[in-house]
Parts: sequence; structure tokens; C-alpha cells
Amino acid sequence: MKTLNVDLGERSYPIFIGQQLINDPELIRPYVQGTQVLIVTNTTVAPLYLEQVEKTFSDYEVRVAVLPDGEEYKSLEVLNKIFDVALANRFDRKCTFVALGGGVVGDMTGFAAAAYQRGVNFIQIPTTLLSQVDSSVGGKTGVNHPFGKNMIGAFHQPECVVIDTDVLSTLEDRELSAGLAEVIKYGLISDYPFFEWLEQYMDELLARDPVALTEAIERSCQNKAKIVALDEKESGLRALFNLGHTFGHAIEAGMGYGKWLHGEGVSAGSMQAIYLSKLMGNISQADFDRIEKIFKHAKLPTLPPSVNEMSNQRFLDLMAGDKKVQAGHIRLVLLKRIGEAYVTGDYSQSMLEQTLTEWR
Amino acid sequence: MKTLNVDLGERSYPIFIGQQLINDPELIRPYVQGTQVLIVTNTTVAPLYLEQVEKTFSDYEVRVAVLPDGEEYKSLEVLNKIFDVALANRFDRKCTFVALGGGVVGDMTGFAAAAYQRGVNFIQIPTTLLSQVDSSVGGKTGVNHPFGKNMIGAFHQPECVVIDTDVLSTLEDRELSAGLAEVIKYGLISDYPFFEWLEQYMDELLARDPVALTEAIERSCQNKAKIVALDEKESGLRALFNLGHTFGHAIEAGMGYGKWLHGEGVSAGSMQAIYLSKLMGNISQADFDRIEKIFKHAKLPTLPPSVNEMSNQRFLDLMAGDKKVQAGHIRLVLLKRIGEAYVTGDYSQSMLEQTLTEWR
Repeated sequence: MKTLNVDLGERSYPIFIGQQLINDPELIRPYVQGTQVLIVTNTTVAPLYLEQVEKTFSDYEVRVAVLPDGEEYKSLEVLNKIFDVALANRFDRKCTFVALGGGVVGDMTGFAAAAYQRGVNFIQIPTTLLSQVDSSVGGKTGVNHPFGKNMIGAFHQPECVVIDTDVLSTLEDRELSAGLAEVIKYGLISDYPFFEWLEQYMDELLARDPVALTEAIERSCQNKAKIVALDEKESGLRALFNLGHTFGHAIEAGMGYGKWLHGEGVSAGSMQAIYLSKLMGNISQADFDRIEKIFKHAKLPTLPPSVNEMSNQRFLDLMAGDKKVQAGHIRLVLLKRIGEAYVTGDYSQSMLEQTLTEWR
Repeated sequence: MKTLNVDLGERSYPIFIGQQLINDPELIRPYVQGTQVLIVTNTTVAPLYLEQVEKTFSDYEVRVAVLPDGEEYKSLEVLNKIFDVALANRFDRKCTFVALGGGVVGDMTGFAAAAYQRGVNFIQIPTTLLSQVDSSVGGKTGVNHPFGKNMIGAFHQPECVVIDTDVLSTLEDRELSAGLAEVIKYGLISDYPFFEWLEQYMDELLARDPVALTEAIERSCQNKAKIVALDEKESGLRALFNLGHTFGHAIEAGMGYGKWLHGEGVSAGSMQAIYLSKLMGNISQADFDRIEKIFKHAKLPTLPPSVNEMSNQRFLDLMAGDKKVQAGHIRLVLLKRIGEAYVTGDYSQSMLEQTLTEWR
């Protein structure tokens, strides 16, 4: 088992990465406060892993909230179901919430924990590659609003993150690829050697080789933990993680939440951001092709929806609702080179529109 | 104008108390971040003060959310209306929310500000005596759930609190009395000289004498700010503010939110807590009578609903859902003497039931 530390002063916490971790009560026990545990999961994960996890917490009073599966249920209304279970069972301020599932379950459980009685502890047990390498680490929690993704939420750090690579064996291929989009992102924004490593080991990752997966998860979490420690509440640096996300969120919202997976939006959205970076002279055609190739290798979409599905204007409107907007101007994460990203509002509107038109 | 400071390190903020403050752009401007201001108010306050406050913020892009008036609308569902307005107008992370109203508006606006894009700034302009002396100070925000009051929320401190005593001129008599319940509470829990002062000046307060009101508000806020500074997130001391609230919340929930005003529940609930304190030998019959007299003088109910309206068992069930419960045992705020309260789980269940039976 590997242990990484997210260094946030008194809110620091460990990330455990390894096999057979969800069955290890000794590992998890020190991070449980109180006697009451609420496991939040969804209809897909519950039949696979809920029983094992309930057993791990068998020393506690365990209750379960099973949410419907999908980004379209990441709403205030469904969030309320978590509160219903906690309150119906009189869970007090010293209880612990456990998120057992992918990014949606993790984000919602984290926000529910932030808001329940104005804040209780929680533990992340991410079960998708995407949530293992991204959303479970860093304390961003929240739900969507019809006008935008993750618009309602809180910064609320977990007590620990338990990444069990065994659970990836039941992940659908499409979900595995979606997770790889975020893995590739770390290479693109801040870690060129990792990008090269990914070019070399993509086949092993797609074949779910446990050694390769552990390596990819560890390096991704290291990259994430490093930047989160420097900028917990995203006043600057942390925005780099959003490469491809302003375009990608627009795709997800424009096509209807749940139709495109988040990682798929990030893949196509990253290609749009990098196309703009190329127009601006930062990225060569050769590097552009190399990036397109790795996303395709990971079985990810590299083109956004067609103009018929989403016009340029629709893109711009949805992008204007992004959290990175300041005083009406859309700020974007662009690449300087592979392994180095920057956040900027300094690009020409016509190049942005050219990107929307040409990269389809 | 008086200025008090709530001392919370980098989250410190001032409380301004005086006349004609809501019309003073110079006073408020230093506390507005960004260019976008969302004023949240309700259908009762809007016709009275919204125009003036909009004028005060006329240098900014101002939008308004008008909520229905009443504790029964303090829900996640109504909270979403605040997000709707902010998002429809593309308010970004640098915007400022302004709460213009009583405790419900303040608590909801504060929680909306805590959760909107994971946290934006907000300013409190409380318009009821109760919110001026209690809920606008200290950063507790939230909404109710059918199973309990303020069960969903956040600690989120305002940038400043603007208490304009002129707005109390339009307050209904019943609302003024409800506010006096919390004022009297400060005397009971931590300030015997203030309790004596209140006995002497209750008639002036009921007559809305501005000098007496300013004094009562200032001393109440001083008491509150002192304890909040020592215990921002209610790990101990701060629970003292909840004298009468465990009983009072049960009354509010049991009778249906909105039927009893919060301050009315606190008044009758405090009498129940003090009756139990008397049974335990802390409070003499003479002091008990003195406390009953001051609540009555303030035109507040001192008896809870009848047994027919709320049985002892119903009381106990609702009290068991309180946030102060730990591992199933109800902790209560009781009096040692007038001017000194304590939090305890150390009382006999039979005396609690005796209180519920006898003090009706």
C-alpha cells in the first residue's frame, strides 16, 4: 500500500492507494469519529461493494443512503435524500459520512457532510478511476444547478481517501477511459515525464494492469495534492486543473447532464483548449497531434459535438456561466507546452470563435 | 453610531449600530467585493426598505431575490431561488450577497453565500430586533428540514453587520417582543447587570425608545460577540446561547414552523429550562418568579402549548433531534443562577418529565 499526504495544516489527510483496502477495518477505524456511520452510495455500486463496506464498519451504527446513479441526479433535491436518512436516524454532529462511489457520490456526500448540522466528518472511498485521481482529493464538493455544474457547494476536506484499485475491475470500459482523461490532464498541465510515461503504458492501463494503474493513480494524486496544498480554495494555481473543463462543462450542460461523461467532456474540451493554444503559437502541430493521439489511444472523444448539436453561440453562452468568469470575461486554461499550463483572459475572441468553428 | 468588533482573526468583522445606516453608501462600500450585488429580502421587508437599500448600492450591478416571508419557507427549495437569480444573472465568485430582512432571510442568504460557487462574501442588514441581537452576528447560517430546525447549513461569517435601529419603527409588536426574548436571554445566561437593566427599562424598550433600544442591542451584541470569538464553531461555550432553544425548537416544530415565532418558543422554552433548573435546586422560587415576570412584561408566552397540542412524548421525540444531542442523550442549557448558564447532560429524566408535566 502507498500513502500520500495532502498537506493542509490541521486539515491534512492521507490518501491510501492499494489492493483490498475497502475490507480493512484497521486502516479506516482511526478516521471514524463518533459511533454513527452513514454510507452514501448509488444503485450501481451498492450491489457490488456495499456489503463489504458495511462489514468493514460493523463496529458502528451503520445506515445507508442509496442514490440514483448519474450526473443528472447531482442536484439539491437528491442531496436532500442524504439529509433525510441522517435525520430520520438521528445522526448527531459527531457522525461520519462515507462516500462509496464515483465523483457524483463523492461530491454530493462531501457537500452533505459540509452542510449537515453545519459540518460533520467524511471519508472518501472512490470507486471509479476518475474519482480516484481527481474528485476525491482536494475537498471540492457540491451539486449542479440547471444553469451550471458544481455551482452550489463547499470546500470540505475528507478525513482520509481510500483508493482500492481492485474495485476498478468492475468499472465499465467507457468509465475507465473517462478517468484516463483526467490522468492525461496531469501530464499536460504540470508533468511532462508523466505524459511520456502515459504514452508508453497506455495499453497496460487499458488492460487494467494493477501495477500500471497504481503508478498512474499515485502520480496523478501526487500532482493534485501538491497544487491543492499550495492553493486550497482555488485563488490561483488550482485553476490549472480545469484544463478543458470550461469547454467540457459547456458540452456536458449543452448535451444534457449524463449524456457525455465528465471525462469525455474534459477530453474533447482539452483538445479545444489546445487547439486555441496552437492558434496562439504555443503548441506545435506535432505536439497537437501527439496529444490528440494519446486521447484517442485512451478511447476518448477528441471532437466536441457537431455545430447542429451545439452552435458556437450556445458554447459561448454556456462557457460564460463558468466559475472562472470574472466581470463577464471568460478566463481559460491554455497550454504553454506539454507539461505546462496557465490561466489567462488574454486571448483574442476571434481565435476562440475560430477554434469553435474549426475544431469540430 | 457605535461600532463593535467580532474578533475572529482574519474573519473578524465590524457590527455598526445606529440610525440612518441603511442609507449610507460610504459606510457599506468598503465591505463590498466585486461589482455585482445580490440583495435578498422578503415580501414584507421589500415594500418598506428595498428601494432605499438599492439606492445605497447604486454604484453596483444590483439584482434582487424576494423570498416569501416566514419560517416555513426556510427550506432548501426556497434557497434554490437565490441561486436561480444569481446564476441567471451570471454572478461570479467575486459578487456580494446582501441579507435585508429578519433571521430567516439572514440565515438563508448567509448559507446561499457560503454555498454559491463554494463561497462568496455577504453583508447582514438585519431588520428585526431578533436578528439584530442574535442571528445576524456569529456566522451561523442554514435552512430547516422537516425533521429539525437549522439542520442544514454552514458557518460563514459576514463582511459586516449593519444594524439600523430606525427600521424597528415598522416592526410588529409581536416581532418586537420575540426579539426581546433573545435580549433577556443574554441577561440570563451571562450578564446579571444587563438583566437588572432590562427589568428597569422594559417599558422604554416596548415603547421603542431609540436610546434604550440602542443600549439593549449593543449590550446583546457585546455578549454574543464575546462568546463567538471564543468558540466560533460551537464546540463548547457557544452552546450557552441555546438556553430555551431545545424546548423552543420542539415547540416550533411540533406546532408547525411559523405558528410560534422563534422568540416566543425561546421564551416558553427558557421557562421550561429554568423550571427544571429550579427542580434541581439551582434557582429559587423568587428568582423563578422574577424571570417569569420579565418575560411576561415583554409580552411573551411563558407556558408551552397544552398537553393536548403537544404531549410529553412528542416533546421528548422532537428534543431528541436537536443538534446538541450526543450519542442519543439530550444535553440541555440550564441556569446556575440569573447571569450564569451551563450545558449539561447530567439531570434526571424524571425531573425533565416532571417539568414537561407541571409547567403547562
